[in-house]
Amino acid sequence: MAPPTRIGLAGLAVMGQNLALNIAEKGFPISVYNRTTSKVDETVERAKQEGDLPLFGFHDPESFVQSIQKPRVIIMLVKAGAPVDQTIKTLSAYMEKGDCIIDGGNEWYENTERREKEMSGLGLLYLGMGVSGGEEGARNGPSLMPGGSFEAYKYIEDILLKVAAQVSDSGPCVTYIGKGGSGNFVKMVHNGIEYGDMQLIAEAYDVLKSVGKLSNEELRSVFLEWNRGELLSFLIEITADIFGIKDDKGEGYLVDKVLDKTGMKGTGKWTVQQAADLSIAAPTIAASLDSRFLSGLKEERVEAAKVFKSGGFGDVLTDKTVDKAKLIDDVRQALYASKICSYAQGMNLIRAKSIEKGWDLKLGELARIWKGGCIIRAIFLDRIKKAYDRNPDLANLLVDPEFAKEIIDRQSAWRRVVCLAINSGISTPGMSASLAYFDTYRRERVPANLVQAQRDYFGAHTYERVDMEGSFHTEWFKTAKQLKN
Amino acid sequence: MAPPTRIGLAGLAVMGQNLALNIAEKGFPISVYNRTTSKVDETVERAKQEGDLPLFGFHDPESFVQSIQKPRVIIMLVKAGAPVDQTIKTLSAYMEKGDCIIDGGNEWYENTERREKEMSGLGLLYLGMGVSGGEEGARNGPSLMPGGSFEAYKYIEDILLKVAAQVSDSGPCVTYIGKGGSGNFVKMVHNGIEYGDMQLIAEAYDVLKSVGKLSNEELRSVFLEWNRGELLSFLIEITADIFGIKDDKGEGYLVDKVLDKTGMKGTGKWTVQQAADLSIAAPTIAASLDSRFLSGLKEERVEAAKVFKSGGFGDVLTDKTVDKAKLIDDVRQALYASKICSYAQGMNLIRAKSIEKGWDLKLGELARIWKGGCIIRAIFLDRIKKAYDRNPDLANLLVDPEFAKEIIDRQSAWRRVVCLAINSGISTPGMSASLAYFDTYRRERVPANLVQAQRDYFGAHTYERVDMEGSFHTEWFKTAKQLKN
Repeated sequence: MAPPTRIGLAGLAVMGQNLALNIAEKGFPISVYNRTTSKVDETVERAKQEGDLPLFGFHDPESFVQSIQKPRVIIMLVKAGAPVDQTIKTLSAYMEKGDCIIDGGNEWYENTERREKEMSGLGLLYLGMGVSGGEEGARNGPSLMPGGSFEAYKYIEDILLKVAAQVSDSGPCVTYIGKGGSGNFVKMVHNGIEYGDMQLIAEAYDVLKSVGKLSNEELRSVFLEWNRGELLSFLIEITADIFGIKDDKGEGYLVDKVLDKTGMKGTGKWTVQQAADLSIAAPTIAASLDSRFLSGLKEERVEAAKVFKSGGFGDVLTDKTVDKAKLIDDVRQALYASKICSYAQGMNLIRAKSIEKGWDLKLGELARIWKGGCIIRAIFLDRIKKAYDRNPDLANLLVDPEFAKEIIDRQSAWRRVVCLAINSGISTPGMSASLAYFDTYRRERVPANLVQAQRDYFGAHTYERVDMEGSFHTEWFKTAKQLKN
Repeated sequence: MAPPTRIGLAGLAVMGQNLALNIAEKGFPISVYNRTTSKVDETVERAKQEGDLPLFGFHDPESFVQSIQKPRVIIMLVKAGAPVDQTIKTLSAYMEKGDCIIDGGNEWYENTERREKEMSGLGLLYLGMGVSGGEEGARNGPSLMPGGSFEAYKYIEDILLKVAAQVSDSGPCVTYIGKGGSGNFVKMVHNGIEYGDMQLIAEAYDVLKSVGKLSNEELRSVFLEWNRGELLSFLIEITADIFGIKDDKGEGYLVDKVLDKTGMKGTGKWTVQQAADLSIAAPTIAASLDSRFLSGLKEERVEAAKVFKSGGFGDVLTDKTVDKAKLIDDVRQALYASKICSYAQGMNLIRAKSIEKGWDLKLGELARIWKGGCIIRAIFLDRIKKAYDRNPDLANLLVDPEFAKEIIDRQSAWRRVVCLAINSGISTPGMSASLAYFDTYRRERVPANLVQAQRDYFGAHTYERVDMEGSFHTEWFKTAKQLKN
């Protein structure tokens, strides 16, 4: 009989296969299992091909579970929701007290908390671990966000530290996030932030292409250039790549042939809903979600374009000549400033949840583990980490002295880009939501006094005053009536 | 023994008292009950004062229920959530098969659906009825949105038709909304739209005051003037009133003394969350909610203002002279165009839910019953009703020929106002979200192709093409790598 393996992994779609190979490559013998057994053989074959990695395939759940050393740890990478419950049921039948299951999917955090409780009734431990980095990250080093049982985390910490992406100046991209569903929650907000980043980049592209009339080759150069500075990041890098790729089915560039409909899988929606629930303004992330919704209405947009064209709408922009170099520089600044706002929203959402749930999450540490491996990895995250190092209680990233300075330096360009887009009939929902967020947050006095006066007028909701303590109600209607007579 | 009354009402806070008095005044003898009995006596006293109305008070639930003619109908006006369940428990103990309870509060629609089922187990009928119009509307004619048992609705239709607000050209502001929790859902979206209206008015105020330097007296004149045209509405009317009211505790105007913090009670939040759930873009309503959230961070805003002032931020606007008359006219147009977008979002949200739940809601009919009684009552709603009369399947209010024309006429002013605000460092989150919504919806091609290409690059999410059917995946990374070598 073979010696027991160190860990197991169930669910061998590409993410699961790649994570298993990554673990094996780091020297941890791993057992793998999948309901459809051909996937098991495929993974075993890949392990052989990729250097005789210590990976062992099993076709039935019982021998899979029993092949792992005790206390057993099994990572699941299956579809969120019912498949997770099904897999837990299958595996836990053969597991023993002290064993642990880790859900590596994009699961709703409350499901993880429910399962952790159920598992605890069986004497089993449970972790919900966000895994970011896509297929490539899973194979070569993802960002890992494990939350739940600290005991279980400690037992496999050595594996996670080696499997995670390694960043030279800040270490492996993994940390124990916190109790309960915190790992899933943090991954959810990470994805919301990712929506924001992608939308802001799309808007930058739109302005440069539609107003600046940049070609794909020029766009590629711009993004390559941007990737050498403050915007250095995975998403900027792959965007540059995308602009360089020719259509393999016809003439021209592939990006121009891709239909303008964006799919989504739920984490962005959850982020927006959680923000509303926790009274956190997250307009940039919400604008990204809305843009995906509207992108899906392709047929309606085509019809609407006709209605407005035949209505005499025409192009909004007159033939102003645009200074390309200046526009590119302005857009870079607008993108960067908007990005700060988006991250400020995401971080404040995480903090609000942490307070509600008593998770005691460390925002700077989250920025650190996102520096490598994940989709939003960027040099920018180092600045966020440093901001929270300077002041862990920072109310908002915007008021960190460094970020404040960066925004002040960029605000003129930012305003120019948003107004140019507006006057060109181009929407930049993310950039303008960011700008409105900034201009609201930094204003001592906003017009909410009028809204509160209206609420007191028609609903007797009372109001506070700027000059004295207390709660006040005015008979606005009666007073106004007297005024009229 | 007195003859039985026609209907009962439980829960005698101001809304409940006023609605009971309204019903009695319309000639329907009504029994009233409240757990705190002093409220019962207070209501009975008011009924005497206001013209010996046929209203009968009861101090215990049993005699209250038994005083009503069978099948009994009781309207509850108590706080949403647990108090509703408690009141149902208390009353249903004395009710008989075929009797009906109506919840007139701002209840979450799923709670109503759960209760309808529970009641049905007891042989009782149930309605969830949105009531809008505040205290004044309840007394003199609210807009009523009853959903649930059609049988129960028919039984009290004669009362509701008389109690509701009466609009000369379109009748009483009540209709049977639909099955289940549809009445609550429609009221929830009504409130979300109300958030949008109030935020857009606040932004108009902000631009006129902060950029145009209008005094409260000038603002009052502007809103009085606006209330004679296309913006004619309850909210514009009360806003004019508000600007005219002097501070009763010091010098100057009261509106300037009201603290810029807006409260909220949940329906706006639910609207935004439901929009996300149903994949409906509702950025104007979301911006209103976010503005309330940010208004609540008064202390943070004061600090942030200091950080940016000391960082050399200063005022953004240079001393451009503003043409007041032109600005006022532009802002009016921007407000109107933004409002169309906000209603388009709310209506599409209702339709999406109606489809999901099979409610078969009539959007034009909803616009009709909002024309009077409720907080968002406005001449504008007649245009919405007509748009749906012209085409019940209208994809979006924006593409109705009349609205499209109105927007085209106003778009230049709209863009001027948003850009002026941006260049003045003033945020107009609602107006700019509306504009971005419009500019996205009417665009045949949006930059979502890039986002989808990114998703396929890092997550193999596949994409569609503009020029052929099917689902495609590209090995972007490999292709880009070849390109580099």
